Amino acid sequence: MDQELSTRILSAVDDLFDREIEFLTELTSHPSTRGQEQSAQAFMASALTERGMEVDQWQIDAADIRDMPGFSPILGDYEDAQNVVGTHRPRTAKGRSLILNGHIDVVPAGPLDMWDRPPFEPHVANGWLYGRGAGDMKAGLASNLFALDALRHIGLAPAADVYFQSVVEEECTGNGALACLARGYKADAALIPEPFEEKLVTSQIGVIWFQVHLKGLPTHVAYAGQGANAIEAAIPLIAALHEMEHRWNAAENRHPDFAHHQHALNLNVGKIQGGDWTSSVPAWSVLDLRMAIFPGQDIKAAKTEIEQVIYDAARGNEFLKNSLPEVVYHGFLAEGYALSEDTSPTATAAIGALDRAHLATTGETLDRAAITATTDARFFGLYADTPALVYGPRAEAIHGFNERVELESIRRITQSTALFIADWCGVETL
Amino acid sequence: MDQELSTRILSAVDDLFDREIEFLTELTSHPSTRGQEQSAQAFMASALTERGMEVDQWQIDAADIRDMPGFSPILGDYEDAQNVVGTHRPRTAKGRSLILNGHIDVVPAGPLDMWDRPPFEPHVANGWLYGRGAGDMKAGLASNLFALDALRHIGLAPAADVYFQSVVEEECTGNGALACLARGYKADAALIPEPFEEKLVTSQIGVIWFQVHLKGLPTHVAYAGQGANAIEAAIPLIAALHEMEHRWNAAENRHPDFAHHQHALNLNVGKIQGGDWTSSVPAWSVLDLRMAIFPGQDIKAAKTEIEQVIYDAARGNEFLKNSLPEVVYHGFLAEGYALSEDTSPTATAAIGALDRAHLATTGETLDRAAITATTDARFFGLYADTPALVYGPRAEAIHGFNERVELESIRRITQSTALFIADWCGVETL
Repeated sequence: MDQELSTRILSAVDDLFDREIEFLTELTSHPSTRGQEQSAQAFMASALTERGMEVDQWQIDAADIRDMPGFSPILGDYEDAQNVVGTHRPRTAKGRSLILNGHIDVVPAGPLDMWDRPPFEPHVANGWLYGRGAGDMKAGLASNLFALDALRHIGLAPAADVYFQSVVEEECTGNGALACLARGYKADAALIPEPFEEKLVTSQIGVIWFQVHLKGLPTHVAYAGQGANAIEAAIPLIAALHEMEHRWNAAENRHPDFAHHQHALNLNVGKIQGGDWTSSVPAWSVLDLRMAIFPGQDIKAAKTEIEQVIYDAARGNEFLKNSLPEVVYHGFLAEGYALSEDTSPTATAAIGALDRAHLATTGETLDRAAITATTDARFFGLYADTPALVYGPRAEAIHGFNERVELESIRRITQSTALFIADWCGVETL
Repeated sequence: MDQELSTRILSAVDDLFDREIEFLTELTSHPSTRGQEQSAQAFMASALTERGMEVDQWQIDAADIRDMPGFSPILGDYEDAQNVVGTHRPRTAKGRSLILNGHIDVVPAGPLDMWDRPPFEPHVANGWLYGRGAGDMKAGLASNLFALDALRHIGLAPAADVYFQSVVEEECTGNGALACLARGYKADAALIPEPFEEKLVTSQIGVIWFQVHLKGLPTHVAYAGQGANAIEAAIPLIAALHEMEHRWNAAENRHPDFAHHQHALNLNVGKIQGGDWTSSVPAWSVLDLRMAIFPGQDIKAAKTEIEQVIYDAARGNEFLKNSLPEVVYHGFLAEGYALSEDTSPTATAAIGALDRAHLATTGETLDRAAITATTDARFFGLYADTPALVYGPRAEAIHGFNERVELESIRRITQSTALFIADWCGVETL
């Protein structure tokens, strides 16, 4: 790309940057936790329509994706889980096609009293925008949109098909991105601006969610010795799972991209509930856990080992050995994905284009990172032969309180993205 | 009491026994868990009215009892917590007055799939009546009622004031019995047929309910090492509380009535809840615990020690040491009570009357028991100078699944109770 075009694109992002932050602020004010994404998706759909894109908004049907690789089990069917895809068609398709993907769902805010300001009343302070989902990843959706706007601002449009995807379910299954594949959306590359500090993600771990249902032998606490406490029975199981976590993280088990990461695979006891009455020995408890796996680690084998560890620990409990815990999967059964292993010419070209865009924007070379989370990139990379570049802004406290995203970082990501689109897709005049 | 009267009373209970079990079956079908006692109380009130008693049914007002000794803290005020008391007045008061007390509230049924048959569809099988609350303690309420019926059946009535109490809140605070005291109900003795295997309870432990609120530092699980898991943080606190439990149960700390009981004081982790999202390090958890104390053990000192143990354990946690758990009391703050320590002539006389009644019914001497639970007896014994005799039928799996009470045991308890009333209150002809 010539220097002059590059400079015009960077300036165009600057010109629109206040509007971009306004857009992000409004988008963040939609409390789009799982099941509540409708108003945020309507906002996205209307933004795409205004820009002249052809908008496809549909309800996910589990039947369409249940038998596809990468599907994660869900409880029941989907109600009101809607994806939005806007399609840009060039007058003449000269360049390579592109998917700009982002997820609209955000994780729960948690206890509101632990936030300095309400999570869905976003505000800017000291160069950061605060709010649940601001970083993870509505800033990415805004960046994708305003990168296209910047081109239009200077009378240009991508010279290839561009699919703008706003998907649900990224935070629990990935079935939103999978449903886009099922609907036939394909391109030469995908870009996902998840908030990983302006680095290119070369590798991401896989994630397994599992529930452990424990039973106990209830009794009046007066006879607690004769009962079996279904809450306390969980404690040795948690300890055994941490031992497994320790083994899986051992140096000899690591994927090369995580060779120097001491603890890439985290076990999380994310939720627990149990018991009905303070003076009754509890008859039941349910734990929701998350465990990570390396790219290439087999999900089926991982599940088997998780179950074995749980059963073995349970056999040490007088009551549980005759009433083994039940392990239920609903939520992530996500494989790891390593872009670093994609040596195809397309991947090499896409990474090269992003390298150039980042350098032109920041004056620095693009850093690589192997991340300890999953993203929807796996669907493109593993199941659609499409290199997926995860590259997004700097955010802090994602999934925590006072989640925030840095404004200048959003600006840089939007600029790089606009340059990347112009390079990858080529441009044509409006 | 002459032999002939005794025989007539025993037969009268037999004559009415089928009706008693019918009554108990219907009473057990009312699902009178905390807050849902209204239909069961209406049923009791109408049974008392039918029998010509003067019925007092009232809504507990926390303001009436809040400053009384024995009050247990509650969340908010009471809504729809109604006590029922039926009063029998003799034509001529010759004997000693009596309170026949029982509680109408039952503990939650727990997961329904763990019951062989629905908990509130009581049924008789192999000599037992099954259902939540059948044993704890609707059989006792039925026994109290049909003991009076048996006297009436042979043309007699107690020759003293008898107060038939059906109270709420026994399973969580005792504030129902306390509200009866506040309303002025007093008598020379009280009988409470709680299901302790036809033994006379000489001593009962005290109970403290406490909630522990833990905070954590939430984060995306990808960075779990930087967060603080509010669920797992509970584990060392539970361990520390078990150490305290062990100390409190040590031989040198035991009340004499529990000298040979290795473990009278049980700690129960009864309920737990925590976390909002499987892939977020949980920011909060809440535990509901129950700990017992010996008669004579000071509640205030016990609370202080519980808090100290929790804070000390929390200080071992990098995050919690700067964000100590909150300990909240709502529910039992119940002192222990030892009838065995009441050497008053009234207590001696009441126990003697029950000894005789039990012997006449069963041909065996009345066994004594020190129990590891609390009952409403403490209000009469500790705060109203009224000896309270806890003496009721054999039940199994109270607070558990398939709770049941033995029919022949109910018959014997009803017979002993009728004899006891005739002896203690005297009788007059109708």
